[in-house]
Amino acid sequence: MTNQEENILLGHGNGGRLMQRLISGLFMAHFDNEILREQSDASILNICGEEIAFTTDSFVVDPLFFPGGNIGKLAVCGTVNDLSVSGAEPLYLSVSFIIEEGFPIATLEKIVVSMAEEARRAGVLIVTGDTKVVNRGKCDKLFINTSGIGKIRKDRNGVVRYNDIMPGDKIILNGPVGDHGMAVMSARESFSFRSGVESDCASLNGLISNVLDSHSPVKIMRDPTRGGLATALNELASRIPFGIRLEENAIPVCNGVRALCELLGFDPLYIANEGKVILVTGEEESRQITETMKQHEQGRQACVIGEIVNDHPGRVVLQTMTGSTRILETLTSDQLPRIC
Amino acid sequence: MTNQEENILLGHGNGGRLMQRLISGLFMAHFDNEILREQSDASILNICGEEIAFTTDSFVVDPLFFPGGNIGKLAVCGTVNDLSVSGAEPLYLSVSFIIEEGFPIATLEKIVVSMAEEARRAGVLIVTGDTKVVNRGKCDKLFINTSGIGKIRKDRNGVVRYNDIMPGDKIILNGPVGDHGMAVMSARESFSFRSGVESDCASLNGLISNVLDSHSPVKIMRDPTRGGLATALNELASRIPFGIRLEENAIPVCNGVRALCELLGFDPLYIANEGKVILVTGEEESRQITETMKQHEQGRQACVIGEIVNDHPGRVVLQTMTGSTRILETLTSDQLPRIC
Repeated sequence: MTNQEENILLGHGNGGRLMQRLISGLFMAHFDNEILREQSDASILNICGEEIAFTTDSFVVDPLFFPGGNIGKLAVCGTVNDLSVSGAEPLYLSVSFIIEEGFPIATLEKIVVSMAEEARRAGVLIVTGDTKVVNRGKCDKLFINTSGIGKIRKDRNGVVRYNDIMPGDKIILNGPVGDHGMAVMSARESFSFRSGVESDCASLNGLISNVLDSHSPVKIMRDPTRGGLATALNELASRIPFGIRLEENAIPVCNGVRALCELLGFDPLYIANEGKVILVTGEEESRQITETMKQHEQGRQACVIGEIVNDHPGRVVLQTMTGSTRILETLTSDQLPRIC
Repeated sequence: MTNQEENILLGHGNGGRLMQRLISGLFMAHFDNEILREQSDASILNICGEEIAFTTDSFVVDPLFFPGGNIGKLAVCGTVNDLSVSGAEPLYLSVSFIIEEGFPIATLEKIVVSMAEEARRAGVLIVTGDTKVVNRGKCDKLFINTSGIGKIRKDRNGVVRYNDIMPGDKIILNGPVGDHGMAVMSARESFSFRSGVESDCASLNGLISNVLDSHSPVKIMRDPTRGGLATALNELASRIPFGIRLEENAIPVCNGVRALCELLGFDPLYIANEGKVILVTGEEESRQITETMKQHEQGRQACVIGEIVNDHPGRVVLQTMTGSTRILETLTSDQLPRIC
């Protein structure tokens, strides 16, 4: 490792290249086992013949409340979605709080209420928990970890199948990108102007099970959270012998998000989402799946945004509106720390 | 709630009375469901006919390294033990890191190595993880969450059975109390003298499965972590229509721990342990179980420390060395914050 990397940088937590290096150089190297090596959003465990999905996420978003949600809602949606995109039906969550001494109990209750509401909405039970309190100044208000257990569907539709991916397959997205990151950004004190942008924070298990129930085979799903759409697709591209071509024209971005991004110099393709899912399917099924998604509240703007191509294997290329092409690299430095 | 309780206090995280109030008044009230209501060390989930144990714990111990262990070893042992005392065979762990920007990667690696070693020793796999980085000053060096999944034993020996507990049942403990808390305490800068006390931090699944495999029925197990032996037994007493009588003479305490406690004004019965288990068994089985435990490295000093009695239902009473009796209350204020 280089000198620069002797200490942990914010970039080590952004879902991009530094984090990948930390994961493979440190965590994978020491914890190594076959299940971990899959590096999916959730691990698939075989317990007495039953396939169980298992995942964990810590949430450190700042501020705790933002347009469209708060850290509690986010913590439930995030883990529900990690299970869902692994082809599992989310069932049970654990919740662990690290709270700064002096934190108002009334605020904690607001957050807990919204976790309970979101769990009900998603149809999951919060079954176990933990609470730690640290002295004033030793953490920033509140951090929440949720871990989750789900049951892999009997038909295994939606479980990651890298080997089945082939040129011509379509990339489907369920709606506009960048909303969550920009909503959190605009909620920070230094950007007190009202952008009207709301987080897309939502549990996607209903939408996803509608698609999987339709019997159209889905080869892989990903939720483009930290690092945004471009980073999630780069991670996917790095695991297949093909390239990914995106049509900039086809990728939905809300006006508010586009305006904020232009103002601040951000690229919406790298901004975190918390209610989005990418699906890879055969060309034939893609129309049917997009139609099914449009019937669901979380999929109204579902569309094909690109495809798997033979060219530039392992890379993601954007066909821009002006007709040129641009390689979308994996995120390196952090555009927006503490977004989830 | 009283005025004093409008904000979170350190005592809300100590395993004692304030924490119990927070759990029942806030978390149970909003997340309420049948599984959560059990309030065990791990929840038992029925997935397609298989009984799965599920638990979570966040670790915020300060300092990160202490005699006998570090935050990483602790995070593995803690979750392994929560599963074990629930009558489960621990199988899989998740690991989630919250890291302060600037944290040395070499130190992180030491911690990761010791997690990997402890996981191997306990025979569990770390199968999924998460990393978040927060800006300098926004958390204290490093926090770790581990969640765990285990398989409930087919014979269900060791699964909590409050209803079977009756007067005359024996309370068995596997060794001396207070080592972990006092080791962490002595490692803090302000107590730089050398006490020679080492944390008992250890995975107990080997010891516990030896006991359960011996076919001697165990009615309940508890690991006396935060709040120590007295708090764990109070929690147990509050759930049965009987009392618990302890023999002070019978409770092993190391000389170093006793000396440190006297010096600092602490009671070793309230100090956290990380390698101790309490078992409740019928009188007849207690001798056999104690003998079985003594054969195991983590049970050399196993002994009966008290029994279930008809008197003072719901309370824990200590028969002191001088012949008097003393009620052991649940911990209220925090003796030692950030011990695990």
